[in-house]
Amino acid sequence: MFEKVKRLLIGRPMKSAELEGEKLSKLKALAILSSDALSSVAYGTEQILLVLVAAGFMALWYSLPIAVAVLALLAILITSYRQTIFAYPSGGGAYIVAKDNLGKAPSLLAGGSLLVDYILTVAVSASAGTDAITSAFPSLHEYRVTIALIMIVFLTILNLRGVTESASILAVPIYMFVVAIFVLIVCGIIKYFTAGAPVAHAEFGSAVSNVSLFLLLKAFCSGCSALTGVEAVSNAIPNFRDPAPKNAAKTLMMMGLILGSMFTGITLLAYWFGIAPEAKSTVISQIAEATFGRGVLYFIIQGVTAIILFLAANTAYSAFPLLAFMLAKDKFMPHMFMVRGDRLGFSNGILFLSVLSAVLVMVFHGDTDALIPLYAVGVFIPFTLSQAGMMVRWVRLKPSGWLGKLFINTVGMLVTLSITLIFIFTKFHQVWMAFIFLPFVVYLFYKIRIHYDNTADQLRIDLAKDKPITKGNTVIIPISGITRVVLNTVSYAKTLSNNVVAVYIGFDDESIAKMEQKWAEWDPGIRLIVLKSRYRSIMRPLYKFIQTVEWKMAAEDHVTILIPQFITKHWWENVLHNQTSIMMRAFFIRNKEVIVTTVPFHLDK
Amino acid sequence: MFEKVKRLLIGRPMKSAELEGEKLSKLKALAILSSDALSSVAYGTEQILLVLVAAGFMALWYSLPIAVAVLALLAILITSYRQTIFAYPSGGGAYIVAKDNLGKAPSLLAGGSLLVDYILTVAVSASAGTDAITSAFPSLHEYRVTIALIMIVFLTILNLRGVTESASILAVPIYMFVVAIFVLIVCGIIKYFTAGAPVAHAEFGSAVSNVSLFLLLKAFCSGCSALTGVEAVSNAIPNFRDPAPKNAAKTLMMMGLILGSMFTGITLLAYWFGIAPEAKSTVISQIAEATFGRGVLYFIIQGVTAIILFLAANTAYSAFPLLAFMLAKDKFMPHMFMVRGDRLGFSNGILFLSVLSAVLVMVFHGDTDALIPLYAVGVFIPFTLSQAGMMVRWVRLKPSGWLGKLFINTVGMLVTLSITLIFIFTKFHQVWMAFIFLPFVVYLFYKIRIHYDNTADQLRIDLAKDKPITKGNTVIIPISGITRVVLNTVSYAKTLSNNVVAVYIGFDDESIAKMEQKWAEWDPGIRLIVLKSRYRSIMRPLYKFIQTVEWKMAAEDHVTILIPQFITKHWWENVLHNQTSIMMRAFFIRNKEVIVTTVPFHLDK
Repeated sequence: MFEKVKRLLIGRPMKSAELEGEKLSKLKALAILSSDALSSVAYGTEQILLVLVAAGFMALWYSLPIAVAVLALLAILITSYRQTIFAYPSGGGAYIVAKDNLGKAPSLLAGGSLLVDYILTVAVSASAGTDAITSAFPSLHEYRVTIALIMIVFLTILNLRGVTESASILAVPIYMFVVAIFVLIVCGIIKYFTAGAPVAHAEFGSAVSNVSLFLLLKAFCSGCSALTGVEAVSNAIPNFRDPAPKNAAKTLMMMGLILGSMFTGITLLAYWFGIAPEAKSTVISQIAEATFGRGVLYFIIQGVTAIILFLAANTAYSAFPLLAFMLAKDKFMPHMFMVRGDRLGFSNGILFLSVLSAVLVMVFHGDTDALIPLYAVGVFIPFTLSQAGMMVRWVRLKPSGWLGKLFINTVGMLVTLSITLIFIFTKFHQVWMAFIFLPFVVYLFYKIRIHYDNTADQLRIDLAKDKPITKGNTVIIPISGITRVVLNTVSYAKTLSNNVVAVYIGFDDESIAKMEQKWAEWDPGIRLIVLKSRYRSIMRPLYKFIQTVEWKMAAEDHVTILIPQFITKHWWENVLHNQTSIMMRAFFIRNKEVIVTTVPFHLDK
Repeated sequence: MFEKVKRLLIGRPMKSAELEGEKLSKLKALAILSSDALSSVAYGTEQILLVLVAAGFMALWYSLPIAVAVLALLAILITSYRQTIFAYPSGGGAYIVAKDNLGKAPSLLAGGSLLVDYILTVAVSASAGTDAITSAFPSLHEYRVTIALIMIVFLTILNLRGVTESASILAVPIYMFVVAIFVLIVCGIIKYFTAGAPVAHAEFGSAVSNVSLFLLLKAFCSGCSALTGVEAVSNAIPNFRDPAPKNAAKTLMMMGLILGSMFTGITLLAYWFGIAPEAKSTVISQIAEATFGRGVLYFIIQGVTAIILFLAANTAYSAFPLLAFMLAKDKFMPHMFMVRGDRLGFSNGILFLSVLSAVLVMVFHGDTDALIPLYAVGVFIPFTLSQAGMMVRWVRLKPSGWLGKLFINTVGMLVTLSITLIFIFTKFHQVWMAFIFLPFVVYLFYKIRIHYDNTADQLRIDLAKDKPITKGNTVIIPISGITRVVLNTVSYAKTLSNNVVAVYIGFDDESIAKMEQKWAEWDPGIRLIVLKSRYRSIMRPLYKFIQTVEWKMAAEDHVTILIPQFITKHWWENVLHNQTSIMMRAFFIRNKEVIVTTVPFHLDK
């Protein structure tokens, strides 16, 4: 039943050998990995204008130089991540680069912030997508948490189905978005040059008295939110078709070009059309309205923008499981993140991401705006660490032309570090949480690693010296009556050892006497020991008895507890039987150095 | 930790021998068993007036003849239940009486309706108690579900602590309520005869045109809701001190007298003071106000009334576990309801009752008024069946004076049957649910009984013929590497049999070759079989392998799977390890005729 539903939702299991077929072409990779970055276009320009408008309408012309700065930063990031891709052809996310060049602690900080960040990405983007839907259909507003959760479930199923399949499905809306925005930009430019600006715009270069450096920096930082998601490609190199690094680098360049031109176009049009941010209408929506009026094209632009905001979450679904896999391989996260599911994806990572982001959505009632600054900090910390790691690498290895490469990464590092610091200083009240949970996550990583190291130490044996040693075997059978299950168990016990006892725990003298008499009548050839329990507990007297046996026999014998257990035909029938045997097994395995054996007897009706 | 909290809440465990000390004196029994019945006084009169007022203020005098009819019914019920107590000295609830005289189906119907009824009682009474609290403190209104749940938790803990202890705690408010109502009645009568009625009242015997028989019957039925809870004593005879039946009969009489006089007093005063039901003020509250004004005494009356409404639930807590015990003893309910807890109460019954009533409170958001008619039907069905059962008994056994006894029970049966029918006809839209879930509950009882009978058949052996048979033993050890746990397991396996194989499941050729080479180097003296899994599943190839072994060996050998398992020091560390061994154990025990043994290795850090 469960199996059937699973097959229907995620498809047939795939062989390990099919992994190569799950690799991505450049076009699909661009679709699946760029949704986060490209979706930033929907709000990047707006974020800049929102800060500038505080200094008055005339200050809006500053958006142009700021956009140039953001584009320069984009160019630096793309160039430096391109360097990383070739330096780390098997996947060079911030975690790997930092681990290789900066050491354990910085790499864990980078890995931890990225993991947390991906969870935030899913929560924020599912909420943003829901907002887009409920803006269109206000009557759905009270179901927003449910809608966001449905979206997360949808993404989960899509990603459990596997990488290529989700890429094929996602490619359509993402390319639609790209085409729609380019159409908008081209038509907007034509409109501007043929019809002129619909309203006045701020004069470029006009002096505005209350524009401070702080304000400009803040606007720049906000604009940088358009750059989140750029690192996704470098994490996902192993998902590319061969030659993976080359394809990844090309995809990255393509993404940079598309993102850069869309951002430039939108910012320019916003300036030309004299658009100021409004509460009720986004910048994109205002540009679309100015260009097309409220026609079909306008609603198409709005629709694909909503979809892309929601699909931004999918980038996290590609990146999180891979990063968790890498951390698990280094024993900083549980082994389970290394297991590939039926469809060859890291299902546990996908499910973990879904559950945590769903919890965030529920806790914040789908109102996750407060998480956005946190999310930006979570991106720029690993950006900075990754650049710093590359700097160390160039100085260490000194390949040909390393000075130029070092220069690029140094500039990148300084800029991303500055952005991180500006974020912390300008929005401390929103990001202080990061300073509590990031150290906690890193601490957890360390604790997990220590546990695994300890376990490995204790389990390791010397193949030459440590050989099996044969001992005797004392077998104890707890019984509650004489039944076919007990008969089965006694038969089995007699094959194991000559030293077998049955133990009966009675609550009153009458039942004990009756049991002794029945046992004598049956005479199965093993001894019965009866114990009286004054507290109606079976475990306590049995525990004491086994302790005594262990104390006497442990030197020369293993102590084995044989538990007779009948297995009902249907699992739900178990509710009709006291689960003493399960409790017994769990208790003795955990608390004593005894071997616990279940001898099943299957009921057939 | 859990143990400590448990001790704090419910006290030290008690020996089985202490059971006798848990028996109830008459005064305590009255307190614990009458709360449901006595609390009816708080709303019985009101229910009658509510129906009558539909025919106008002048119709209210009919409350007096109706009250006489209710009192007569009370007398009949008390007398006939007194007969039942002596006929069934070890506890004679409707279930026992029906089982003994009417057969299986009627007894299960009686038992089922009572069980459902007790669950309703707790839900309704916790909600009513909450209403009393939130009427006094309206700001608590939005927390009503939480308050009702806290009350249920409180009653659960009280009852888990044991019968006598809860009796001691509950006796105080219940006797306070009785005293308070009697003080109210006496003062009210004095007031009436000294000061006269504060307002006009309906003339006794005055003709009211629109009073129909249907209306009077409906009013009578509603008044009969004051009689719910009368059966509690006859269920609980085993809880009484010796001589149990005599003490129980005396307690029942006492309860009848108290209930009868309180009901008479309240109804009379309501008539004399010309009280009509009001939405905002209960009849008791109006009488108290007319008698004392809004002073301290008024608030005491209101307070104890609120408490008693809430404590009415406690009757269900005494009766439900006992009835569930009886049904479980007859194998119509799961065995677990027969287990006495640490404090000698039937803890599972108590917990089951709490959970289900809490679910009802949550589903109905603490607004359980709709459940009240259902609850009355649930009481009068077993009343009727119990009376009918007693009739059959007298006819069958014909003891001295059986004709008189038969007469009493016949009258009782006819009256309770009529009430049941009137309830069904006048309130069908509220009670139709009973006709779905009562048959369902009875069906469940039958299914459970069939399962137990089948199980017993399959487990039964012939002590003379069925003796243990010794076979050989083929041992299979699934391994994932060579570790100390595997060393341990192999050592143990060699004590069991000479026919041991280790099985390794690899996902690729490289790991398989490596494993084979390491095994050869270790050379533990047993054979290694390697299997390749193309789907990354361990279970599937292992299952197939075991199937083959079973097919070859099952005739002369047991097949034992030895599972090497290391036990982490802290349970939460399990999250760091894939739980393959637990899944393996559960899977093979359920699906194959193999014996599953866990060989634990305890990590000490």
